Amino acid sequence: MNTLGNNYRITSFGESHGRCVGVVVDGCPAGLPITGEFIQKELDRRKPGQNAVSTSRREEDQVEILSGLYKGYTTGAPICMLVWNRDRDSSGYETRRWTPRPGHADYTARIRYGGYNDYRGGGRFSGRLTAGYVMAGAVAKRLLTHTLGVEVLAHTSQVGEMKSPKVSVEEIRKHAESNPVRCGDPETAARMEKAIKSVSQKGDSLGGVVECVALNVPAGLGQPLFDTLEGDIAKALFAIPAVKAVEFGLGTVLSSMKGSEANDPFTMQNGVIRTMSNNFGGILGGLSNGMSITCRVSFKPTPSIGLEQYTVDIQKMEETSIRVDGRHDPCIVPRAVPVVEAMIAVVLTDHALQAGVIGQVLGDIK
Amino acid sequence: MNTLGNNYRITSFGESHGRCVGVVVDGCPAGLPITGEFIQKELDRRKPGQNAVSTSRREEDQVEILSGLYKGYTTGAPICMLVWNRDRDSSGYETRRWTPRPGHADYTARIRYGGYNDYRGGGRFSGRLTAGYVMAGAVAKRLLTHTLGVEVLAHTSQVGEMKSPKVSVEEIRKHAESNPVRCGDPETAARMEKAIKSVSQKGDSLGGVVECVALNVPAGLGQPLFDTLEGDIAKALFAIPAVKAVEFGLGTVLSSMKGSEANDPFTMQNGVIRTMSNNFGGILGGLSNGMSITCRVSFKPTPSIGLEQYTVDIQKMEETSIRVDGRHDPCIVPRAVPVVEAMIAVVLTDHALQAGVIGQVLGDIK
Amino acid sequence: MNTLGNNYRITSFGESHGRCVGVVVDGCPAGLPITGEFIQKELDRRKPGQNAVSTSRREEDQVEILSGLYKGYTTGAPICMLVWNRDRDSSGYETRRWTPRPGHADYTARIRYGGYNDYRGGGRFSGRLTAGYVMAGAVAKRLLTHTLGVEVLAHTSQVGEMKSPKVSVEEIRKHAESNPVRCGDPETAARMEKAIKSVSQKGDSLGGVVECVALNVPAGLGQPLFDTLEGDIAKALFAIPAVKAVEFGLGTVLSSMKGSEANDPFTMQNGVIRTMSNNFGGILGGLSNGMSITCRVSFKPTPSIGLEQYTVDIQKMEETSIRVDGRHDPCIVPRAVPVVEAMIAVVLTDHALQAGVIGQVLGDIK
Amino acid sequence: MNTLGNNYRITSFGESHGRCVGVVVDGCPAGLPITGEFIQKELDRRKPGQNAVSTSRREEDQVEILSGLYKGYTTGAPICMLVWNRDRDSSGYETRRWTPRPGHADYTARIRYGGYNDYRGGGRFSGRLTAGYVMAGAVAKRLLTHTLGVEVLAHTSQVGEMKSPKVSVEEIRKHAESNPVRCGDPETAARMEKAIKSVSQKGDSLGGVVECVALNVPAGLGQPLFDTLEGDIAKALFAIPAVKAVEFGLGTVLSSMKGSEANDPFTMQNGVIRTMSNNFGGILGGLSNGMSITCRVSFKPTPSIGLEQYTVDIQKMEETSIRVDGRHDPCIVPRAVPVVEAMIAVVLTDHALQAGVIGQVLGDIK
Repeated sequence: MNTLGNNYRITSFGESHGRCVGVVVDGCPAGLPITGEFIQKELDRRKPGQNAVSTSRREEDQVEILSGLYKGYTTGAPICMLVWNRDRDSSGYETRRWTPRPGHADYTARIRYGGYNDYRGGGRFSGRLTAGYVMAGAVAKRLLTHTLGVEVLAHTSQVGEMKSPKVSVEEIRKHAESNPVRCGDPETAARMEKAIKSVSQKGDSLGGVVECVALNVPAGLGQPLFDTLEGDIAKALFAIPAVKAVEFGLGTVLSSMKGSEANDPFTMQNGVIRTMSNNFGGILGGLSNGMSITCRVSFKPTPSIGLEQYTVDIQKMEETSIRVDGRHDPCIVPRAVPVVEAMIAVVLTDHALQAGVIGQVLGDIK
Repeated sequence: MNTLGNNYRITSFGESHGRCVGVVVDGCPAGLPITGEFIQKELDRRKPGQNAVSTSRREEDQVEILSGLYKGYTTGAPICMLVWNRDRDSSGYETRRWTPRPGHADYTARIRYGGYNDYRGGGRFSGRLTAGYVMAGAVAKRLLTHTLGVEVLAHTSQVGEMKSPKVSVEEIRKHAESNPVRCGDPETAARMEKAIKSVSQKGDSLGGVVECVALNVPAGLGQPLFDTLEGDIAKALFAIPAVKAVEFGLGTVLSSMKGSEANDPFTMQNGVIRTMSNNFGGILGGLSNGMSITCRVSFKPTPSIGLEQYTVDIQKMEETSIRVDGRHDPCIVPRAVPVVEAMIAVVLTDHALQAGVIGQVLGDIK
Repeated sequence: MNTLGNNYRITSFGESHGRCVGVVVDGCPAGLPITGEFIQKELDRRKPGQNAVSTSRREEDQVEILSGLYKGYTTGAPICMLVWNRDRDSSGYETRRWTPRPGHADYTARIRYGGYNDYRGGGRFSGRLTAGYVMAGAVAKRLLTHTLGVEVLAHTSQVGEMKSPKVSVEEIRKHAESNPVRCGDPETAARMEKAIKSVSQKGDSLGGVVECVALNVPAGLGQPLFDTLEGDIAKALFAIPAVKAVEFGLGTVLSSMKGSEANDPFTMQNGVIRTMSNNFGGILGGLSNGMSITCRVSFKPTPSIGLEQYTVDIQKMEETSIRVDGRHDPCIVPRAVPVVEAMIAVVLTDHALQAGVIGQVLGDIK
Repeated sequence: MNTLGNNYRITSFGESHGRCVGVVVDGCPAGLPITGEFIQKELDRRKPGQNAVSTSRREEDQVEILSGLYKGYTTGAPICMLVWNRDRDSSGYETRRWTPRPGHADYTARIRYGGYNDYRGGGRFSGRLTAGYVMAGAVAKRLLTHTLGVEVLAHTSQVGEMKSPKVSVEEIRKHAESNPVRCGDPETAARMEKAIKSVSQKGDSLGGVVECVALNVPAGLGQPLFDTLEGDIAKALFAIPAVKAVEFGLGTVLSSMKGSEANDPFTMQNGVIRTMSNNFGGILGGLSNGMSITCRVSFKPTPSIGLEQYTVDIQKMEETSIRVDGRHDPCIVPRAVPVVEAMIAVVLTDHALQAGVIGQVLGDIK
């Protein structure tokens, strides 16, 4: 329902236009040094209203930590964190109540909850809920870095038809946070930004792709069959609104390849077993193999567009049309970058705790 | 770990070269009429050794139902089913024990289980485990059809570089089971078969894609955010060995589109709310919208190939090479078709039970 | 960890001397009319500082509802509720940090969390956490009453050696909330109150028993073996600090009886199947049988006492002694009455949702 | 439903008169040396037909291990084990189908499963299902002993009104398995045996109590609030048919005590922190404190009795009477002793794995 994970478990609450958006993190071991500033830094990356390619809704999104920390360390108790909703503009939602927006959950939510759902701003289905993911992900990132040296890093590799060339981890580190679209290639970034502004002016929107890489993941995380790393990461990524495809390693491209081309041969590298290539994205049989974990996440274009669209009036049960004015990101992908990182960090933490590799490290601290 | 699902819950057990492969299905309501023959029919579709494009391992794969049925009906008790392993040939695995096969889980399993895992035939990581999925999926399919009229249907849409044109549901129904590659388009099927035989002769292998559609799924199944239909279906599909990408609706293609092109407008059709197109694969906000649910599943090429590949000797910690002789499917995709169907049926059943829509129908029977 | 239940799921957060104590309720169906006042009424029953037999800590314990309600109805989204901690007096806890209080979790928490736990006021192990249970239980009670007419009712049947005679449901309804010890028998209540004041003056404390009955529970809730009503209720009750025994029906007394004495014979009553006696507390084979569900919950005496007790200094690893001054209930049982009711309501709701009986009723409303 | 536990997870399947009774154990770490003989030894303790105080149903109850072991070690894969049902006598159940036996689940199961449940021999509600618990418990015991030196030990402390004096662990070890009632005090054992035979001849039955102790449990296992050791052990014990009360430490007796009498003072013993008494049964705040964990489990008398009892004919909806002939234990308590041990071992293993203490030990072996 609204809880994800087994050993590192996050419970989401809140609505887009309710009082707040929050998360309860359960399972974080005691003794992890962490500050509100660290969590805020991640939240700021996701914050709306940052630049010309994002929504004009302005939210401070200041993290409030309600429980689970004491004297600068995690205590082993659940960590409840939230951001208050301040800049709510629910006008328009009442009038649009009976005309579901195409591409949104308005219609399906109505069926599911018999009309009792909070429909303002998409309610529980809003992208704003991902603020909770980012807070939970910040704790996960801190834990992963502190104990295992794992780093989770994403960038925008595609916006509409603009695709970034293959970029290195160094390029992502250097460039992704320096341009408003969060692309690892500055030249493509400029073109992406222009494309977003262009469709935005026409009242339209764009989709895109986030590429993510997790470095220094120890070999052996994951489980065969049902709780594979791929399966758990994919489930967590599909929790991000607008995600419609998840690929690992070369992903869909592998379908066209031969075994002799696709297989990553093993080799020795400074006394350590590695693979020569990493077509399978660091995962074999659902378990990490010690290489970088790589995946691609495809986002559909923002469904809210200013252009006229067909829809139905569900009260009168007749056809009508709608224009979705309001404050929306013309392309959600740049702001989704920290969210993708967060969800992958959450899943890796869950599996690292399950495998017992974190306990061994943090245990020494106690 | 080895249990999947909440309301319809399947627990897998067994190994490729152990005594059997089985599954325990929990949560199936009492009162569903079902026979061993029905389950067997699904199992037969997955059975190895059926034709020239599949492995030469021969297994009867006769379902044994150990519990949960009485007088031809489900009883509400867990249903334990298994197939015995008979045609085991574990020769080769002892000698290959220290040289992990590229693309397989040999290395990661060793790390995870400290060398205690049953490595014969891939052990717990083998595709043979999917026999359990198919048995669990058969019960799910029976329940879905009997109560909701839901039909889950898949076919091979790509093998290597051979891609099927878009085919209708009718074409899948008519053709997919009539050719050894299970493609809905007979002409492509012939080319796919040829391609598989060709790489097989060279000791190589091919990947491919399975497309799946679920018909008559009622609107409102699924949950926002963490337990979306997409997330749960994806997690279940990544439980199938060799799957590396999962897409819904137009999937990755949506990333290149504009909102005005991608959005599925609502319309009235015979008094029912439908969408004009189905680019989002029947899912909005993680919930079914009453349209067909469509997805694409990408498989990497079978990692077992007869050609020489680099690997390491993990005892000596030095580089070496390997040829993986033995009995393997040169392309696993055709046999994966019923497995994909099974996993999607399992997830839809889980969500239908959660939403309470099955209980209402089956309840009348009691 | 900190989440309980499957279909009606509660996640607890907060600490005794942290910022707040809260709960997230997940799985409550949409469309239930509920107000903050209703929840507050239950909270007020648990509130500290109500009378001479309770702690002198004063907390307003005003419920704050952060999510999940809209226009007076549940929305189907998680309901986050909390009370702020205001009257925190953490003095004493710093000095007592190294001398674990006998009967408390100070020592075990230290081992578990390596000293990083928030030890002030018992932190995460404090009885104050049950404020969250009561809020979650209030929603559960509202749902049970509204849809099934289920009523959950408890009273103090024993304090120290003072035992109440057997009282009827009517007597509990009439008297339990009218005396500070919440006993269904006013005469015993007076003696209990006196006994508590007497030990309190001596710096000592008392244990006791809460008896609970759930009326109008439909037959057929629960599951055989692992998820029995007894098992789930017991697990939920042991979540209340100081509970050391849980009994159903005649409980421990049944051990001394013969089958012919203990068995509840079936009979017809106004066309309905009932049992003549209810020695088994309304549960057969882990499932409700349509009779009242009855159970007894034994509490140990409050471990915080003003008398000198032996303990150890865990820094110096040497023996010492301690007096636990501070604000504590000399007998926790009266304030535990609404908590016991809450937890039983939570479990019954979970099982009623699982069995599908609530959905059918509330579904009509939509 | 039919799965219990998180990190050490057992899934039960089978029916009393179906083909078999079995269990799937998930989460047992790889590398544990274990044999079928070890499991069989535990099963033999529970086996029916052992002596004059048990049922005359004769079952070999030979364990069949279907998966999860290889070369004498656990592999990390799920362990499926079962015993076949051979001596089934289902006569009588067809005629009794419409007249639910008092004290049994016949009526509640019928309501729950709409009459589709396998009612022969109690079906899924039969005590025979505990054979699965014992197999799962045997693996748990092996793991606990091998890694932590934990020993779980129970005996019959009460049969009807015959109560054993307090016995030491040594007396339990020495005597409990040497008399048919499994009492740690031989003199009481003789009287218990006589009492059982006496009621048995009259067609009646007796209840009783099993006392259990777990030695060498490390401090710090368990969790506050929802996943306390007490809560999880209680839930697991209520999975045993006929259990109606669970107490820890002095249990119900604590309700009558003062804090100054009940509290276990801390002390130093050979440099280790211990408590002087163990009134709280080795658990504080839901976590083990390093002392022995002790609990008492109360069983109602076997509901199957040869004497005439009132019941109803649920087809005709009218009152009638019934005699339950057949093969039943006149007192189930002696055979429940290994079952209680098994369930406690299962829960302790689950918590030991969760706390990471087993991984550290077994990890060294790899």
